[in-house]
Amino acid sequence: MEGSQSLEEHPYIPRDLKLPGFVPGVLSQSTIIGFYAVSSLLVVSTIFVLSGRSPKRSKTERWLMCWWAFTGLTHMILEGYFVFSPEFYKDKTACYLAEVWKEYSKGDSRYAARDAGVVAVEGLTAVLEGPASLLAVYALATGKSYSYILQFAISLGQLYGTAAYFITSWLEGDNFAASPFYYYAYYIGANASWVVIPTLISIRCWKKICAAFQVQGQKKTKVR
Amino acid sequence: MEGSQSLEEHPYIPRDLKLPGFVPGVLSQSTIIGFYAVSSLLVVSTIFVLSGRSPKRSKTERWLMCWWAFTGLTHMILEGYFVFSPEFYKDKTACYLAEVWKEYSKGDSRYAARDAGVVAVEGLTAVLEGPASLLAVYALATGKSYSYILQFAISLGQLYGTAAYFITSWLEGDNFAASPFYYYAYYIGANASWVVIPTLISIRCWKKICAAFQVQGQKKTKVR
Repeated sequence: MEGSQSLEEHPYIPRDLKLPGFVPGVLSQSTIIGFYAVSSLLVVSTIFVLSGRSPKRSKTERWLMCWWAFTGLTHMILEGYFVFSPEFYKDKTACYLAEVWKEYSKGDSRYAARDAGVVAVEGLTAVLEGPASLLAVYALATGKSYSYILQFAISLGQLYGTAAYFITSWLEGDNFAASPFYYYAYYIGANASWVVIPTLISIRCWKKICAAFQVQGQKKTKVR
Repeated sequence: MEGSQSLEEHPYIPRDLKLPGFVPGVLSQSTIIGFYAVSSLLVVSTIFVLSGRSPKRSKTERWLMCWWAFTGLTHMILEGYFVFSPEFYKDKTACYLAEVWKEYSKGDSRYAARDAGVVAVEGLTAVLEGPASLLAVYALATGKSYSYILQFAISLGQLYGTAAYFITSWLEGDNFAASPFYYYAYYIGANASWVVIPTLISIRCWKKICAAFQVQGQKKTKVR
């Protein structure tokens, strides 16, 4: 009986996942998602307004600055907390960041289980891509010549990470969600932005960089 | 007794790794490495000689073409075989590619054990980076405007993959080598080129791309 009790303690799949000392989350799903949505909206609208001060800046560039600020802070704060808090599921203080990962683990229990593939991808994302995303905001704001190659590098890192994240789950049986709802809402839905947006940005940067080399080529021909 | 016999069957660490049906390798270490070295030398020298036919091409570009041909074929043939041969350790035919992975697993038994992280990284490497590397040879040979951004993208993928490869091993206890010799020769030594060379190429491409945007910027200023 004791054995079956300890298996019933957490809401995650697989049911036989051992999480000794697990403390259930106390914040509701709507509180957790609502707070993330409102904070993100605050960041995005602040960047959008501030970036509009320069009349030379295009709408696309302003939206890109919003994206890099949003994704950079998500990587550094949310994912950074996960990477350096192996025991978040034992948290008793209702700390918001621990609650996020207790909730998200319903869509992918490998977070609570501390799967090495997930921790490696999240580690690279939080430590390298997070700060690099904030650098991309600065590069766009100041029109640096490395702006496109930096955005391309981070987007490619995000795509590689998301691909590895989905492939490892598939190889391990794709059975880490507490229900189809959590599977589609959290595991698929929450990650979809990090497939679609980096793909669009990569294509845009690729084209801009090719165009720059064509201009350089024309210039060289003229000089000759 | 039966249990302990089956544990003694393979030469890998951890000793309790289960590999039912394991067939020991028959080719010697020097045969395996020698064949890879001679084939690689053949590829590299062929590309180096052929690429020298155009007098406009710099030495650096010729060496880059050699690297991309070598790494592309390694990704597609060696790593491609591994990805699509989950039971290579049962091979009885002394097939060279199976022998390579039976030997390399002495440096990292996660290959024989089919660790999801390793298979995911090798899958992305073999299926995406392999063909892309051969495209880089073509792009360099024909002076395409996408040459630098393509080389940058593949190098970054190689660096991300190698980082994820080392980090997952470290998170899982870094105890997958049959001896310190295999650890340093195979796990560290054989992977070192895919850290050093992609780093150098990434830096070179980053600088070239930034320079192209500076030229473009100057041109725009002149036109005004």
